[in-house]
Amino acid sequence: MAEYVRNLWYMAAWEEEVVDDARLPRTLLDEPLLIYRKEDGEYAMMANRCPHRLAPLHKGQRSGDTIACPYHGLEFNAAGQCTRNPFSGLIPPHARVKTYPAVGRYGAIWFWPGDADNADDSLIPDFSALDRPNPIVRGRTNFAANYEIISDNLLDLSHVEFIHPESFRTEGKIFGGQYEAEETTDGAIWSRWSMFNTVPPAWLENLPQDVRLDEWIDMRWHAPASMLLHIGFTAAGAPRAAAPVADMVNPHIITPETSSSSHYFFTRDPGEQSEKLANQVFEEEDRPMLEWIQQTMGDKDFWDWKPVILNVDASGIRARRRLMKLRRTEQANSEPLAAE
Amino acid sequence: MAEYVRNLWYMAAWEEEVVDDARLPRTLLDEPLLIYRKEDGEYAMMANRCPHRLAPLHKGQRSGDTIACPYHGLEFNAAGQCTRNPFSGLIPPHARVKTYPAVGRYGAIWFWPGDADNADDSLIPDFSALDRPNPIVRGRTNFAANYEIISDNLLDLSHVEFIHPESFRTEGKIFGGQYEAEETTDGAIWSRWSMFNTVPPAWLENLPQDVRLDEWIDMRWHAPASMLLHIGFTAAGAPRAAAPVADMVNPHIITPETSSSSHYFFTRDPGEQSEKLANQVFEEEDRPMLEWIQQTMGDKDFWDWKPVILNVDASGIRARRRLMKLRRTEQANSEPLAAE
Amino acid sequence: MAEYVRNLWYMAAWEEEVVDDARLPRTLLDEPLLIYRKEDGEYAMMANRCPHRLAPLHKGQRSGDTIACPYHGLEFNAAGQCTRNPFSGLIPPHARVKTYPAVGRYGAIWFWPGDADNADDSLIPDFSALDRPNPIVRGRTNFAANYEIISDNLLDLSHVEFIHPESFRTEGKIFGGQYEAEETTDGAIWSRWSMFNTVPPAWLENLPQDVRLDEWIDMRWHAPASMLLHIGFTAAGAPRAAAPVADMVNPHIITPETSSSSHYFFTRDPGEQSEKLANQVFEEEDRPMLEWIQQTMGDKDFWDWKPVILNVDASGIRARRRLMKLRRTEQANSEPLAAE
Repeated sequence: MAEYVRNLWYMAAWEEEVVDDARLPRTLLDEPLLIYRKEDGEYAMMANRCPHRLAPLHKGQRSGDTIACPYHGLEFNAAGQCTRNPFSGLIPPHARVKTYPAVGRYGAIWFWPGDADNADDSLIPDFSALDRPNPIVRGRTNFAANYEIISDNLLDLSHVEFIHPESFRTEGKIFGGQYEAEETTDGAIWSRWSMFNTVPPAWLENLPQDVRLDEWIDMRWHAPASMLLHIGFTAAGAPRAAAPVADMVNPHIITPETSSSSHYFFTRDPGEQSEKLANQVFEEEDRPMLEWIQQTMGDKDFWDWKPVILNVDASGIRARRRLMKLRRTEQANSEPLAAE
Repeated sequence: MAEYVRNLWYMAAWEEEVVDDARLPRTLLDEPLLIYRKEDGEYAMMANRCPHRLAPLHKGQRSGDTIACPYHGLEFNAAGQCTRNPFSGLIPPHARVKTYPAVGRYGAIWFWPGDADNADDSLIPDFSALDRPNPIVRGRTNFAANYEIISDNLLDLSHVEFIHPESFRTEGKIFGGQYEAEETTDGAIWSRWSMFNTVPPAWLENLPQDVRLDEWIDMRWHAPASMLLHIGFTAAGAPRAAAPVADMVNPHIITPETSSSSHYFFTRDPGEQSEKLANQVFEEEDRPMLEWIQQTMGDKDFWDWKPVILNVDASGIRARRRLMKLRRTEQANSEPLAAE
Repeated sequence: MAEYVRNLWYMAAWEEEVVDDARLPRTLLDEPLLIYRKEDGEYAMMANRCPHRLAPLHKGQRSGDTIACPYHGLEFNAAGQCTRNPFSGLIPPHARVKTYPAVGRYGAIWFWPGDADNADDSLIPDFSALDRPNPIVRGRTNFAANYEIISDNLLDLSHVEFIHPESFRTEGKIFGGQYEAEETTDGAIWSRWSMFNTVPPAWLENLPQDVRLDEWIDMRWHAPASMLLHIGFTAAGAPRAAAPVADMVNPHIITPETSSSSHYFFTRDPGEQSEKLANQVFEEEDRPMLEWIQQTMGDKDFWDWKPVILNVDASGIRARRRLMKLRRTEQANSEPLAAE
């Protein structure tokens, strides 16, 4: 499988998963990692294995920002440095745990698996739309599928008409829509579907049925696979800027767990009905398709399958090419940047 | 593991598994395949993955002979050609699904994974003995064992005295029998056991016990592992042609699912007792032995184990050598015939 | 993973697992093996696969010291030689099962996977301490961890304070103890912890609390990972030779099943409380740690992790180096000794 791009911000967790003295174990990019919140409110992130005998640090005692290995009691500070050996005053100088830059922003924790010197937090994609007061459920699921298989899915929303006809009730509107791929100067790739002169959708139940709308479903992608869905509408023929309400936005942020499994971070409205819908979409509709594709693809690279490319794949293919280019750039650097 | 011989007819399914608008998914020779019956009564067989993003075609809608991909709605005809892209008039010319010749005969569907130009249906082995009016149950099981391990088993029936003494009650007759391997001009390899001057077996309960018989148990093999068991008897000393009834025949047709698992097609009489016997033979007696052997053999080739060869192995060894020769012939062709 | 040292005695089973006509199947060093007790009271040990078609010999009939293959009835004597072919007088001369020297001693069966000519039973490590009259339960568990990960654990008993504080109630004494690694002329490597001037431990409940003791916990290792734990005490300041009672000794004998799983042979006192303690120590405390480490280590060699070495690792590291040296010596022999 293709290598991961390392000099990027990846979402690691929701901030609410790492509160108080929690020590969250999470595998990201094939690495078992430990995340915890320091006493100053910042996050510490490090390899979840003691450099002595590989024991899992998240099972150890925590005292302040110090974690004690649960196996033989070596203690490490948030910088990964061993600060105490309970059986000797001697601390081997290379008794260090590899740490990673981690930043809390937009309710999420972002980590940088690459060269720490390049970890500029202004490069975190803008998810400020998530900083909103209304109650929201922040969720995570895990698919046994490579993250690029999932971004293929999310960047080609035409699948909604086939996989999710009951869940989203687009009722064929997407077939009459126009698709456009766009790259913007903030590094985003957009997949935009625009539907013109439409009957109001079911969820706008207060609108009279004889009103006509222009609607859009836009997915914004940032490398590696951090996406934000925008759904909006305006009066038919009116400019987008005249929309009566702001776009509804929902994150779809995918982070590789391994080369064949991914964490999928999402939000949904509170309540039983929303929970049921999310379960249906993720468990019954997306999961079987995405995991079948992973199974079928196996270890063979996407491009080696010589896949048919349709016009509606333009955004997904641009995203794949962007990642390929980033990988090549990193590989061209003669010294591996953040390899252990 | 050894490659599959591709220019052969393999049994894919019973015809009764593929009725009406059924879309049967089945993995054969490591390939996920789709089988369905066309409106003209012939069978269509193709790779069970859309050439766009590998989605499973058997889960899509069917209209006439057209299958729509369940993921983004591309439609394919029975020749595997994409005939519709619901989001554009544009159909990429290489949007094709690989298809395979498939023929219904003797109640079974046979497919040809090799060069379609060579798919001469007169090469399907003669199982016309299955075209009989009496009611029969057509079954399939799956063993986690390579198909050649199973044909080794079936071509050396001496194992019946050890694995199936209760099920078949041969009561030691095979020990006193004569074994012969034979190759016939129709491409068959036979394993023949002849027992002379025997007491009538238990299943011939109407015969007086003082009658003496000559009995035979003959297994006929065609590549890759399509076998037909013949059981017959005549009066002791009389020629086979004088047998009072025709041989009882039963198919034992093995088709590789993967290199370490196989479909096993069989028939049995209707009724609870016959079902119970089949369960006992397949589940309790053959399965543990065959799957243990596969586990033990692992990825190491049969010949690399330097297995002891007994005289009763002559048929099984000839079958293995026949397949080796066929593989070598195919590999010697400079251009791969049916490789994707 | 590293190869196994072959010219060593490995514990295969407790003698009480192989009584009467038992045919014990057991995988050791990646080999499925068969162990049985011959009529003369000695043990036979051989590959648990028929050289004809790899069938599992432990499922066959036994008559005296002869085992009949359950598949086609070939019979083998305890030397592995085929002695009967039920379908022919002909016995192929190479119809042999590979056998291994096996010796019963100290209630255990030891086997030698290397060159049989070198299988000197005086090289079996001395476990005569196990030959005692008091009732004992001989147990075996299996960890999904390489045997060297387990000997690392057992040769560095400082972990007791972290993993087993409730089970063994050392109550911090080990922190105040002295650690010493020692190699003795019998080929043993010792890990010795000595605690001076201590309050009597909880299990010496009859001693007045104002007595002061010197205590020791010593682990003796022989290659590959056959260990004997010694626990003892004497009056504070008195020599060890003046101890009022002999050391309590307990075997911790580890034999590789595969490169990532191990048999762990132990003894414990009879009774429910002792059973409960053993379950707690093995299942709840050691197993999760050792199996996590194996999972994390994966196929990467221990040394490639550049593990931190502490002073308390001296015994474990000496044991690892001893095995490396033995492996190198065997590999330097131009002819493989006991490879099949």
